[in-house]
Amino acid sequence: MYEFTAAFRQPSGSPIRELFKYLSEPGMISFAGGYPASDLFDVDGLRLAAERAYASAVQCLQYGPTDGLPALKREIIHLMSRRGAVCEADEVVATTGSQQGLDLLLRVLVEPGDVVLTEEPAYPATLQAFRLQRARIVTVPTDAHGIQVDKLAALLESGACGKPKLLYTVPTFANPTGATLTAERRRALLALAVKHRFVVVEDDPYGDLRFAGEPLRSLLCEAASVDGARDWVVHFASLSKIVAPGLRVGWMIGPREIMRRCVIAKQTVDLCSAPWTQALAAEYLAAGALEQHLPKITAAYGIKCRALCSALREQLGDAIEFSQPEGGMFVWARLPGLDASDLLVQAIAHKVMFVPGKAFFADAADRASLRLSFAAPDVDAIVQGAQRMKQAYDAVREGQVLAL
Amino acid sequence: MYEFTAAFRQPSGSPIRELFKYLSEPGMISFAGGYPASDLFDVDGLRLAAERAYASAVQCLQYGPTDGLPALKREIIHLMSRRGAVCEADEVVATTGSQQGLDLLLRVLVEPGDVVLTEEPAYPATLQAFRLQRARIVTVPTDAHGIQVDKLAALLESGACGKPKLLYTVPTFANPTGATLTAERRRALLALAVKHRFVVVEDDPYGDLRFAGEPLRSLLCEAASVDGARDWVVHFASLSKIVAPGLRVGWMIGPREIMRRCVIAKQTVDLCSAPWTQALAAEYLAAGALEQHLPKITAAYGIKCRALCSALREQLGDAIEFSQPEGGMFVWARLPGLDASDLLVQAIAHKVMFVPGKAFFADAADRASLRLSFAAPDVDAIVQGAQRMKQAYDAVREGQVLAL
Repeated sequence: MYEFTAAFRQPSGSPIRELFKYLSEPGMISFAGGYPASDLFDVDGLRLAAERAYASAVQCLQYGPTDGLPALKREIIHLMSRRGAVCEADEVVATTGSQQGLDLLLRVLVEPGDVVLTEEPAYPATLQAFRLQRARIVTVPTDAHGIQVDKLAALLESGACGKPKLLYTVPTFANPTGATLTAERRRALLALAVKHRFVVVEDDPYGDLRFAGEPLRSLLCEAASVDGARDWVVHFASLSKIVAPGLRVGWMIGPREIMRRCVIAKQTVDLCSAPWTQALAAEYLAAGALEQHLPKITAAYGIKCRALCSALREQLGDAIEFSQPEGGMFVWARLPGLDASDLLVQAIAHKVMFVPGKAFFADAADRASLRLSFAAPDVDAIVQGAQRMKQAYDAVREGQVLAL
Repeated sequence: MYEFTAAFRQPSGSPIRELFKYLSEPGMISFAGGYPASDLFDVDGLRLAAERAYASAVQCLQYGPTDGLPALKREIIHLMSRRGAVCEADEVVATTGSQQGLDLLLRVLVEPGDVVLTEEPAYPATLQAFRLQRARIVTVPTDAHGIQVDKLAALLESGACGKPKLLYTVPTFANPTGATLTAERRRALLALAVKHRFVVVEDDPYGDLRFAGEPLRSLLCEAASVDGARDWVVHFASLSKIVAPGLRVGWMIGPREIMRRCVIAKQTVDLCSAPWTQALAAEYLAAGALEQHLPKITAAYGIKCRALCSALREQLGDAIEFSQPEGGMFVWARLPGLDASDLLVQAIAHKVMFVPGKAFFADAADRASLRLSFAAPDVDAIVQGAQRMKQAYDAVREGQVLAL
């Protein structure tokens, strides 16, 4: 009856969100979510910050500047400086979660048919954003250390992908793989961006969630040591995974010329992100509450991650392959010889959930792969969930057929 | 250096936002803003609602459903029912202000080159959204009673505008004109939408701000009495003008098929609007605080509107033409023989501001027109502002040249 645009004629929602209906089943243990642990939210610290913010009620209640409340932008600049990056105010735009940053950037940089690069496997909402923009998606293979930059170089030199507009990556504790790009690859990637004049989009929601190994400089920081690279990096960050997603406070940092256009796009998109939660976030950061609370989250995630990895090894032994991540929220695994979608059917019957890997591939998927998040369930649930994974695995191996 | 998309190659921001730099000049009286009055915010009622909402802290802090928190959607449905419209949950999507609703809808319905209709003069952010979508904008003239529907009918019959995808209108207390579409024109407009199969986008942020005259049913309500019309109405509403814009709580109501696609677009755009302020808004509405507080706002706006209109008549007499609105925030005026941009230069020198009408025209502007908002300044400032308008007017008539 209606004439929809090409991208929406046959719409399909997020494949992960479609799993949500099973989450409410009684007794379900979920490794499927990308949500942070609700029981680790700093409820009291955020209440205090909210009260302090509301002392300037009009700032919370009135429209704010499109690029973000000045108080929040100051705190973002301080936070980024603690992370080793120097930013000026006109390089920073506060967004409604970092998800919005990608949307704004694509509008400003990507016409239908333009080539965009991303790692494979990749964050599904990014693939979806590319598709809605009708970009031509070209993927670069990854290993346990992130994007294989030598293969990217060969691809760019071959001309097979034309002139890409941008490359999207989660270089630190990637979603879905948990992998972290090495420092050497970071510099090589930046040099390629300068040479081939494409924007490197660094999505960094998990960088602070390190519970093992040594910190690495973000691509934004590293850009200072690669000639001309700062002109080609747009960095997204967010409080969603380190404070609370319900604030919808994210930000983007990039070259002024690009940021200025993103602000114009944002005027049209939502005028400004909620000043109330921006003011609250500014107070929370100004009070030093993030530095105080974050170690509790990373310690808990470290314990959960180790619990999941040992339980999977104990239950599934050689049948499962994975690298133990040093931070973030995800373990990426393979069960050679099995289709993870078949496993999911049995898993749901056994009251455990995960995301089959195919959700993270632009084209041909590694069907044996799956993503497990350890962030939300507690350690007991993680151990029990791994036992159920084993039962589901056995059921698939025995050829039991179930229909979802 | 960068290759931007066509819409962003020569970007120009909001013409109104460009006036903001003068707002901070000491002693400036502004009729320029589209902001509601900060001193009429229900600061205490909203603090209470925030405290109650935070009793369920996890709901405030975690990700929420893309289409909105169920508690907020329930309250929206109740509010719409008090306004006379029956809506089901899957016809309602909570948005980051109603501005976002337009953005989502355009993505779903409008390809570059598609014809979109709007009233002239029109809300500039709508014109900007159309331009960024690279739609072909066709305008319909208005008078003191809104869109001239007979002229729209003739335009549609002539085929001169091809097959339009949608028509955007603010039928009640329009921005910028303050005009309200008559009931008869509402029904005629809906009949045209059914006949010519275009979506009528009704933006209704001001409908509750009536301080004179008799209430009229919204196009959404009226659609129930025009065969098939409900399939062709998408209604936007918001708490920005009746509670507080800083919540960024708006919503859209429309046919399920369209809303489903808007939700998919929103997954990619920002995942969800801030659950914190959604929960707060739900508590505020559930407590009946809107019904309690709204009469204070409308009474104050009525007083301010009458003050502005009499002061303008007193100061400028026959030199100024305008219709006194029955609600909303704006007076639309003409100063025949004058260019409002010239007047603005003198006005700023005399410490008073307004928006020249040309900001509201897609093409050829009525350069004698201007928009005055009475919402923010108090009555004393309004009276003094009108005196300054007169001084600025005299200065222009005397041919004083100033450069901004």
